[in-house]
Amino acid sequence: MSSCVFIDLSGTLHVGRQPLPGAIEAVERLRNAGYRVRFVSNTSSKSRRRLLGALQKIGFDIAYDELFTAPLVVHRYLQHHRLRPFLLVHPDLVEEFTDLPQNDPDAVVVGCALEHFTYANLNRAFRLLKQGARLIATGRTACFEGKNGLQLDAGPFVAALEYAADTEALVLGKPSAGFFETAMEEFSCPGERITMIGDDAASDVGGAMAAGMRGILVQTGKYRPGDEDKIGQPGAIVVPDMAAAVERILRKE
Amino acid sequence: MSSCVFIDLSGTLHVGRQPLPGAIEAVERLRNAGYRVRFVSNTSSKSRRRLLGALQKIGFDIAYDELFTAPLVVHRYLQHHRLRPFLLVHPDLVEEFTDLPQNDPDAVVVGCALEHFTYANLNRAFRLLKQGARLIATGRTACFEGKNGLQLDAGPFVAALEYAADTEALVLGKPSAGFFETAMEEFSCPGERITMIGDDAASDVGGAMAAGMRGILVQTGKYRPGDEDKIGQPGAIVVPDMAAAVERILRKE
Repeated sequence: MSSCVFIDLSGTLHVGRQPLPGAIEAVERLRNAGYRVRFVSNTSSKSRRRLLGALQKIGFDIAYDELFTAPLVVHRYLQHHRLRPFLLVHPDLVEEFTDLPQNDPDAVVVGCALEHFTYANLNRAFRLLKQGARLIATGRTACFEGKNGLQLDAGPFVAALEYAADTEALVLGKPSAGFFETAMEEFSCPGERITMIGDDAASDVGGAMAAGMRGILVQTGKYRPGDEDKIGQPGAIVVPDMAAAVERILRKE
Repeated sequence: MSSCVFIDLSGTLHVGRQPLPGAIEAVERLRNAGYRVRFVSNTSSKSRRRLLGALQKIGFDIAYDELFTAPLVVHRYLQHHRLRPFLLVHPDLVEEFTDLPQNDPDAVVVGCALEHFTYANLNRAFRLLKQGARLIATGRTACFEGKNGLQLDAGPFVAALEYAADTEALVLGKPSAGFFETAMEEFSCPGERITMIGDDAASDVGGAMAAGMRGILVQTGKYRPGDEDKIGQPGAIVVPDMAAAVERILRKE
């Protein structure tokens, strides 16, 4: 069985609509060397279909089935536990859940809903939680760099609902064990044969290493000096960028 | 100097637009016995003016200057510290802050903004906090009973902003020491001459007693059996309702 490389998207392969220098070629090099390449992301403000389109448009050769996202893990979880979700997510993401029953919800799914985090929607979610619905989140990220500066991500709204309903959310995105375990299962690859490359020390690298993978931190995107300390696992590799990460993988094995 | 009685509003004097049985007469009895009566509330979804109008309409004889609210304490605090607020509050409350400069804000004030808790407003608040503005809240209440069931109060949004900006809010409503101290100052009455009556064990009774007042818990409004344990102070009096509370005050002194 060939080894797998899991790669984060934003900050690792691209920033906004700009591919990072050497990133497109680095992915190609991995493929040519026989690695199975998978793209793993917490993104929940776009559907997988639109996310793929955006990546292809800026030059990445990626197939639909190679893209693995937090909403996908949420979908699997809901399906497995036969839960009926109330979706507090961006409308663009709704298409990923249309196959699930959504009447009389017993789960509240929180993604990065942006302006759809309205008082009415949050009240609806809150009332369901008070009735016993399970709180499930794609992630706990506090914010992201938007067009007009920093913007709130799903995390603060998860915190609001946890506070309101006195409950704890089940977070299914990176760095949760559930995320990485579902990805391993999905791609039939054991942790010891996977290398995860990302710019988020805790979420990408720490989470992957805790799940038994090898972790490489790239110093691009949101990376800031000192982030190495946030990995929380011994033995991580730190390199300047994607090209250097791939170089390390190809040299080592 | 005559003694003071501080009385909570919702759940103690009335529920919604309905005065509680005997509450109107109980307030009158206190006045006739020479007590100075003051009404203290965390309410931030209505201005003091409108709150007063609503109380008068259902039969309470209350003067504007007898009404003491969390937004009033926030106003004093902003004024004292020369802070320029960004108001994440209900538009009805804005009139209470028009005398303060609001350009280039260095404080974010969170009240119960209801449907004005929009993503845009929350982002604005978040960015100001990231730039160093102080987070100030009228309260941390999670929810209240609205027309269509439970609704989110200010608390969850305070929690969201605290999480997002990694900061801690200064809460100036009940049960904070700041609230009760400002009220004592406002009405020139020392704690040992004040009795606080309320239906919230922690917020009304516990907070007042911690500030050196006497506390009476009424078993109306949001009171639930066992709430006595939440007072957190020894020596509280527990009575069925306002009439019984006043009876206790008049009998004792």
